Amino acid sequence: MNEYSSKLLEKAVNELSRLPGIGKRTALRLALHLLKEDKQKVSGLAESLVKMRSEIRFCKRCNNISDTGYCEICSNLRRDENIVCVVEDTRDVLAIENTAQFSGLYHVLGGIINPIEGIGPNDLSVAPLIERIFNEDIKEIILALPPTVEGDTTGYYLYKLMKNLDITITTIARGVAVGNELEYTDEITLGRSILNRLPFENSNMR
Amino acid sequence: MNEYSSKLLEKAVNELSRLPGIGKRTALRLALHLLKEDKQKVSGLAESLVKMRSEIRFCKRCNNISDTGYCEICSNLRRDENIVCVVEDTRDVLAIENTAQFSGLYHVLGGIINPIEGIGPNDLSVAPLIERIFNEDIKEIILALPPTVEGDTTGYYLYKLMKNLDITITTIARGVAVGNELEYTDEITLGRSILNRLPFENSNMR
Repeated sequence: MNEYSSKLLEKAVNELSRLPGIGKRTALRLALHLLKEDKQKVSGLAESLVKMRSEIRFCKRCNNISDTGYCEICSNLRRDENIVCVVEDTRDVLAIENTAQFSGLYHVLGGIINPIEGIGPNDLSVAPLIERIFNEDIKEIILALPPTVEGDTTGYYLYKLMKNLDITITTIARGVAVGNELEYTDEITLGRSILNRLPFENSNMR
Repeated sequence: MNEYSSKLLEKAVNELSRLPGIGKRTALRLALHLLKEDKQKVSGLAESLVKMRSEIRFCKRCNNISDTGYCEICSNLRRDENIVCVVEDTRDVLAIENTAQFSGLYHVLGGIINPIEGIGPNDLSVAPLIERIFNEDIKEIILALPPTVEGDTTGYYLYKLMKNLDITITTIARGVAVGNELEYTDEITLGRSILNRLPFENSNMR
């Protein structure tokens, strides 16, 4: 007997369970939910995915997702063109924009170096970043990459590539999160936050 | 500025986050994953959902999902037609079939009574169940509904409807799960398992 009593259901479950973080059980729950929905709603979901995949564009300058040739941040004349924050993907741009603490531009790599998954510098928007440094008036590059082995590797790779160019290279501070108890902070983070301690007057603890 | 820097991305995120258990963050993660996938894969996913929703059929006898007029279980002459197990949806059929302990037929309600969500008996396959009792040679109905207020309500409703018909009505046993510590079992379950205790020789503890 077919495991799901229907080949159509089985196909949908298999397709859904290829999404990251969606196992067979969740996929079945989603598929059964969609079966109860109006046909129009299911078509709406399907169309929005296909349309997004086929029509989405990337900003010609920063490689962020954009419906237009240049994204809204790159088109904004009030942003500081001297500082460029390098991030993994769009989610990081959203996260940093939400802090309202950064008024420079971004450069979206579109991933990070991950030898296990076969992602190297050529799969990322690295060459366009270097081009930007030569062609634009960039004074500082902030590396805002994830605090993982892959993120550190990517950061180190970019640092080596850019260190002889006439720019300042910084990384975002890592340390004890605001509101976290010292006791529960992992040793590496706490250790780094001691090594990278700041003069109190610069620490924004007001 | 548009929250997701692209209307296409925003639409896809909104559609995905309407799925049960998928919040905005997960929806964004899924959408960005799909953006990195081949166009064909995204189309494949979308098509499988639309096709499933528009072409899926339900068994004319038990209301389970089926690609044919009668499902594989109802078409199987070796199943015991005298016992029918009433369940909420296809997932429960799969779960019970996986135990290999039941050789009767099923009846899939397609949901349970839920006044808060406005789901009443007329939204479920209740009338066809009663019809089956009159037209088929059913001797026992097993109610295998979820152990929730809604499941109990549905069970009680069906019991009232069927109690004067010439059939035995049973429910699946509720009690301490195999492998669970008594200490960590909730009071209601433990209490019920004491009230519904069995003679040891009938308890399948071999």
